[in-house]
Amino acid sequence: MHSLLRNKYQNILLKGDIKINGSRTWDIQLHNEKLWNRVLFRGSLGLGEAYMHGWYDVEDLSEFFYRLTRFVLPSYQDGGFRQISTKLATVLFNVQNIKNSFKVGRRHYDIGNDLYQSMLGSSMAYTCGYWKGVDSLDAAQIRKFRLIGEKLKLKPGMRVLDIGCGFGSAMAFFSKEYGVEVLGVTVSKKQAQYIRKYYQNLPIRVKVQDYRLTEGKFDRIYSIGMFEHVGYKNYKTYMQTCWRLLTNDGLALLHTIGNNISVKHTNAWVEKYIFPNSMLPSLSQIACSAESVFIIEDVQNFGYDYYQTLLAWDKNFTANWSHLSANYSDIFYRMWRYYLLSCAGAFKARDMQLFQIVMSVNGVEGRYDSPR
Amino acid sequence: MHSLLRNKYQNILLKGDIKINGSRTWDIQLHNEKLWNRVLFRGSLGLGEAYMHGWYDVEDLSEFFYRLTRFVLPSYQDGGFRQISTKLATVLFNVQNIKNSFKVGRRHYDIGNDLYQSMLGSSMAYTCGYWKGVDSLDAAQIRKFRLIGEKLKLKPGMRVLDIGCGFGSAMAFFSKEYGVEVLGVTVSKKQAQYIRKYYQNLPIRVKVQDYRLTEGKFDRIYSIGMFEHVGYKNYKTYMQTCWRLLTNDGLALLHTIGNNISVKHTNAWVEKYIFPNSMLPSLSQIACSAESVFIIEDVQNFGYDYYQTLLAWDKNFTANWSHLSANYSDIFYRMWRYYLLSCAGAFKARDMQLFQIVMSVNGVEGRYDSPR
Repeated sequence: MHSLLRNKYQNILLKGDIKINGSRTWDIQLHNEKLWNRVLFRGSLGLGEAYMHGWYDVEDLSEFFYRLTRFVLPSYQDGGFRQISTKLATVLFNVQNIKNSFKVGRRHYDIGNDLYQSMLGSSMAYTCGYWKGVDSLDAAQIRKFRLIGEKLKLKPGMRVLDIGCGFGSAMAFFSKEYGVEVLGVTVSKKQAQYIRKYYQNLPIRVKVQDYRLTEGKFDRIYSIGMFEHVGYKNYKTYMQTCWRLLTNDGLALLHTIGNNISVKHTNAWVEKYIFPNSMLPSLSQIACSAESVFIIEDVQNFGYDYYQTLLAWDKNFTANWSHLSANYSDIFYRMWRYYLLSCAGAFKARDMQLFQIVMSVNGVEGRYDSPR
Repeated sequence: MHSLLRNKYQNILLKGDIKINGSRTWDIQLHNEKLWNRVLFRGSLGLGEAYMHGWYDVEDLSEFFYRLTRFVLPSYQDGGFRQISTKLATVLFNVQNIKNSFKVGRRHYDIGNDLYQSMLGSSMAYTCGYWKGVDSLDAAQIRKFRLIGEKLKLKPGMRVLDIGCGFGSAMAFFSKEYGVEVLGVTVSKKQAQYIRKYYQNLPIRVKVQDYRLTEGKFDRIYSIGMFEHVGYKNYKTYMQTCWRLLTNDGLALLHTIGNNISVKHTNAWVEKYIFPNSMLPSLSQIACSAESVFIIEDVQNFGYDYYQTLLAWDKNFTANWSHLSANYSDIFYRMWRYYLLSCAGAFKARDMQLFQIVMSVNGVEGRYDSPR
């Protein structure tokens, strides 16, 4: 039975030139034949669980996932068109599913920021960097901030809103580099505490608040890696909220992971326990929700840069494992790398995108020239 | 009755600081009080007809339309959101409606290319130029061609398809500047004759053919100002046709006027007599039709440049009127300027957009860096 299944999966994997026990960095090194049953009955969830259990290894996991996503999965689609993102989303979210089912996922959120500080580097930015012309993670994050600052045409004295401000590094950069006043809103008390502690000398404020309850008027609004948590039912509300908070000559920038196809669902277990309403928007969903609210001035797609970012996070994570391992289990180590590197491979395969979208309230007067 | 209506419209127009018989270049100079009834009963159609009849004049017609579109029309919308494009589309298409109803519109298509040659200049490009860093129409058209060539990453020997190739100036530019072989498809025999006559020494071919019947494989496909004639029912077919004709590492560029909102209709009379299935696509309609077919790599919006382009066309048209007037009537003169300048004002008001969209078959490997 095992050998029949093994032959079946070997044939499937050959579409991506992936061999079982082959000698290339992307080949599977099999340790337990139970892998095939697990994948047969639990799909990509089983693939992730089996990895965590140590039933197989892949030296270059991101390349394995790149090949799986770009060459193997599409050949099982009809009509020659790519409709694989829902599958991959399952792969990705299952990691978090597993993470929780092993009771290791929530743990690291509770024990502090050592993991993130180790992994993210000095920028503390947990979103895709912009690697154009730079070759380090920190530089790519700064490059990303500058790209956003230039796209938003920030000028001294402007009032700026950061929706989902994370650890505040973007706010700090913009206030220092462009002389703007930034209000950040977050639903995380820990992030707010972090910002108040580290950036008390800057003209930035932070509120623990649902962004929809924010009041006031702003010249510029941006969100970096927050829209993924909005959910399709609220895309329009997100747009209308930004519209309400912007001045007439205001600009909004949306930095979000994009899905190749429009979905209205996510993994039910994740929905309930991890990220309520978390899902990746397609460009058509974004454009549709912006319609009659904003004029879309520019759309940049640099999804490939997330591949580079995730590889850098993985490098930091493994380099810091010796001191992190006191707080995290070995199974967490495998789970976390699986998460980072499966996403990396998917971005390299262009199965997910990174969209930066600039929107204006009434259409900029004159041409909107975007930097690149 | 006239004075009541006049007062009503004066109040409406004040939202855009437009005065009846005022002294600014954008004010209406009224010659016939019947204008108000015409507008009351025939809307924007009446506004255009009245202009053609000479019932009013505006020194700067584009500024009048800019103010009308940006400030007057939005104040009659609910909810504070802009939904005015259908109204403006009516304004614009009514011009063509009128054109035909006066039996002067079709005439100029039949009598040869003197109008277009006079108006368009040496580029013979009847689409929006790109005015970044240049200050003449000819330079803006060349700048646009170069922008497209760079976005498509053209390299010597590539096979390129131009869908709706017009008078062939883009094909000629790309074959000369980038050493590519271009096939142009057009539904106009006259355009094909023009191309065969003027560009016989270049590696370009032209076919009089529906693009959906084109066969072969191409490294690159572009269309400049053709998608407006596709119609919403065929957007998906357009995308799938491009997909079928492209190599696996192919790129497609779509250059089209964009609507701010999604519509599935156009003026019925225009539909029947002028441009069957002509309508302006919204970005969400474009993104939706590209979904599961292409990865959208980049979207640029330079709608404002159409304002500049249309002003330049109007300038050429009026400068050449002395010799054109032998073939065209005085009412054609007013109609044509109304068409050019009402569109110019609408683009300046950002009520219509100009989208250049770059799409790839499988996602470019690595970052897609777009020029600007």
